[in-house]
Amino acid sequence: MNYRIVSKILGRVLLIGAGLLCVPLVVAALYGESVLPFLYAAGIALLAAGALLLLGHGADDSLRAREGFVSVALSWLVLSLVGALPFVFSGVMPRFADALFESVSGLTTTGASVLPGVEGLPKGVLFWRSFSHFIGGMGVLVFMMAVLPLDDRHSLHLLRAEVPGPVKGKLVPRMRSTARILYLIYIALALLETVFLLFGGLGLYDSLLTAFGTVATGGFGLRDLSIGGYHSVYVEMVVAVFMLLAGVNFNLYYIVLLKRSLGGFRSEELYWYLGVIAFASLTIAAGIARSVGGFLPGLRYAFFQVVSLITSTGFGTADFNLWPPYARTMLLLIMVVGACAGSTGGGVKLGRVVIAVKASLREVRRQLFPRSVARVTMDGRRLDEPVIHTTAAYCLLYVLTTMLACLLLSLQGLDTETTLTSVISCLSNIGPGLGLVGPMGNFGVWSAPAKLLLCLCMLLGRLEFFPVLLLFAPGVWVRQRR
Amino acid sequence: MNYRIVSKILGRVLLIGAGLLCVPLVVAALYGESVLPFLYAAGIALLAAGALLLLGHGADDSLRAREGFVSVALSWLVLSLVGALPFVFSGVMPRFADALFESVSGLTTTGASVLPGVEGLPKGVLFWRSFSHFIGGMGVLVFMMAVLPLDDRHSLHLLRAEVPGPVKGKLVPRMRSTARILYLIYIALALLETVFLLFGGLGLYDSLLTAFGTVATGGFGLRDLSIGGYHSVYVEMVVAVFMLLAGVNFNLYYIVLLKRSLGGFRSEELYWYLGVIAFASLTIAAGIARSVGGFLPGLRYAFFQVVSLITSTGFGTADFNLWPPYARTMLLLIMVVGACAGSTGGGVKLGRVVIAVKASLREVRRQLFPRSVARVTMDGRRLDEPVIHTTAAYCLLYVLTTMLACLLLSLQGLDTETTLTSVISCLSNIGPGLGLVGPMGNFGVWSAPAKLLLCLCMLLGRLEFFPVLLLFAPGVWVRQRR
Repeated sequence: MNYRIVSKILGRVLLIGAGLLCVPLVVAALYGESVLPFLYAAGIALLAAGALLLLGHGADDSLRAREGFVSVALSWLVLSLVGALPFVFSGVMPRFADALFESVSGLTTTGASVLPGVEGLPKGVLFWRSFSHFIGGMGVLVFMMAVLPLDDRHSLHLLRAEVPGPVKGKLVPRMRSTARILYLIYIALALLETVFLLFGGLGLYDSLLTAFGTVATGGFGLRDLSIGGYHSVYVEMVVAVFMLLAGVNFNLYYIVLLKRSLGGFRSEELYWYLGVIAFASLTIAAGIARSVGGFLPGLRYAFFQVVSLITSTGFGTADFNLWPPYARTMLLLIMVVGACAGSTGGGVKLGRVVIAVKASLREVRRQLFPRSVARVTMDGRRLDEPVIHTTAAYCLLYVLTTMLACLLLSLQGLDTETTLTSVISCLSNIGPGLGLVGPMGNFGVWSAPAKLLLCLCMLLGRLEFFPVLLLFAPGVWVRQRR
Repeated sequence: MNYRIVSKILGRVLLIGAGLLCVPLVVAALYGESVLPFLYAAGIALLAAGALLLLGHGADDSLRAREGFVSVALSWLVLSLVGALPFVFSGVMPRFADALFESVSGLTTTGASVLPGVEGLPKGVLFWRSFSHFIGGMGVLVFMMAVLPLDDRHSLHLLRAEVPGPVKGKLVPRMRSTARILYLIYIALALLETVFLLFGGLGLYDSLLTAFGTVATGGFGLRDLSIGGYHSVYVEMVVAVFMLLAGVNFNLYYIVLLKRSLGGFRSEELYWYLGVIAFASLTIAAGIARSVGGFLPGLRYAFFQVVSLITSTGFGTADFNLWPPYARTMLLLIMVVGACAGSTGGGVKLGRVVIAVKASLREVRRQLFPRSVARVTMDGRRLDEPVIHTTAAYCLLYVLTTMLACLLLSLQGLDTETTLTSVISCLSNIGPGLGLVGPMGNFGVWSAPAKLLLCLCMLLGRLEFFPVLLLFAPGVWVRQRR
């Protein structure tokens, strides 16, 4: 382990964090609120950044995979800690465990909250909550790569650790320009949605923050009824469509822009994504039609909820906790499955699930023909065996983590449904679950140790297990030999 | 597909089935009950056997893997159908879906029942219920191999399909003698338990049937309160110890007998098995101590329930549905995990879980060292990569099947806990679940289509997915070229 380079990267991340804290500071000032919570937080971030940069001074530039993974995991940890400070200093969440939960939930784009209601809270604090989605959606280190000089060899390791999806970084050899382009697409989507929402009669503040929550697939809302609080079909459909767009692999947009051809959207995963959304929306709509006054109103609610949960956003327009069992089970399954790899969404990711199913069926066939070399293909191309094994391991880690976390949480004694869906919701970075943590509930029901465990789940989910787990791997922390 | 050899094997299986039906027939006669249900069932089995043997007449002896798998899957299907007949003819379960569920539940050693109570039912019918556990526990085709002449090349394919566990048939080159020895150990265990129970004051009928349910890890009881109905700590501990023994890989007993040394018990999986049982029993005992009047009574109930559920037996001495969440969650997890491979128990099997965890952690490490050739070892020996891949596929199939079955069952509209634990209980061949299918409930709450789906789950679990799934594989049913 090259401790100096890790210190240097963490220092830079905290510098950026301090800079980002100035945005809600300005918002608070504009609304005539106290800027002190943000000023203090930024100050602490700057001090920590200074210390880390001093420690990392004169680091040689050897950044191997281990330093990459460790830097990413620790960056998210220190940013979460700093991000929690404004919640504490503003008095909105006096207990640090609550504030940390909210901060991790924001940065990991989970959108799970410990607050029973948000209307009436300071504008600056709510801005920071939603802005943290936007920061975490595309990745903090991707942002750093986009703006700071780090050579490409380094960027590769950071990108591998932070960007979601089984196949990574094959777009262009120059990582820095890729990072920039991905960020530009991301910002463009957010601005476009803001404009659409402004047309819908929402103010600039609500439009911008809703757009942050949407394109990052975060889900922190500004109304106690979430998007349902705007009582506007137009707003609901704009948000639904942009959630759907945010759940698509961003690489596809990049390819479409590069080739100036819609052929870039030819992707097996995308077809599955749209197919699952259509199937789930239609069947759920049929199931709830009677209780909401017809199939079309049913479709309106079903489509929004399905897109919101498959993309792991977590915005709501209906209390699906009251829906019939089929609808609830279907929603729970798409929460696990998730959106496309390379999107800002969470969950296992559809592409991984498709690969896991194909690989499992191959093993079934192999029982008959043990020496066959059956291939697993995606988009007509053969997948490398290591990709398949990592994917299988990923799915297994998801299941094992769910089981272990449920066991630990069950010590608090809440019901099975609340416990299971709390874990799935956090691990998939969704927001709401079922039972006590349903759309009308909140995570305040959990004790402080349970909240910390759920924070770990959110980070494991957002960083896709490997960087976080590697923190505990033997040998990773051994000082580098010269 | 060589249809003739499959016909021949199915015909032989049905012949054996007809013979086995004579046992409860004799029991019914001894107790002065009507023998007609068994006579009719045996008659139908004989007719079907005759027809199949005629169809299979003159079959050439080419039995490849596909015929082996298909024969095993279909054998279980026809035996289940024939086994359901006595329940219908006796009037105990007039609806065929109920009778089939009970029959599949018996043969697959699940022990889930649609009956609200069993006390007062005809002795012959109850004997058949428990005897079907004993038939299914070690495998119908293993039995056939033990008694009928089939050359070893054939036996291999049948054994591979029917015997549980990731590594199979490496004991002795001669399959037939292996099958015989495994069966002898199995029968010896049952007889030994019968003797112990006789000493405990149980009658011969109760002792024998309880032993059937124990060594096959089945779980059909003779009292409405299951083993708890005997109100005897001695009986409970005898049953618990024999359940524990039945959950051990039978190959270990074979090796110990062969080498006349306890060194045969040196097995990583066995250590995990005992460790998990100890950990779960102690922690659950601590959790329920207050409500049952102390740690020791707690341990009595916890140990029995833990052993009963990890071995997938399903006997009960307490209503764990009323236990605190930690106990229920822990029990649910060990239901999924299961006992040792090569035992009569169900579930994913501990050995597979250990392999899956090791393989997943290897993939974590591989993120750092992509070109490393880290090995996955078990008992100090390196596992072949195909074994690891099949194991991972098995675990994924278990999860995917659970998810899909829950979605389909949710259409009936029961609560999440009942739905999820019904699927897990059937897929792991346990018996009870939680909620409406808890130890004091029964599977009669499910509709006929749901029961058929759960039958499929039980067969998938007992035959470990591959043989059943191969029935649906393209190409399997193509007629063999000459």
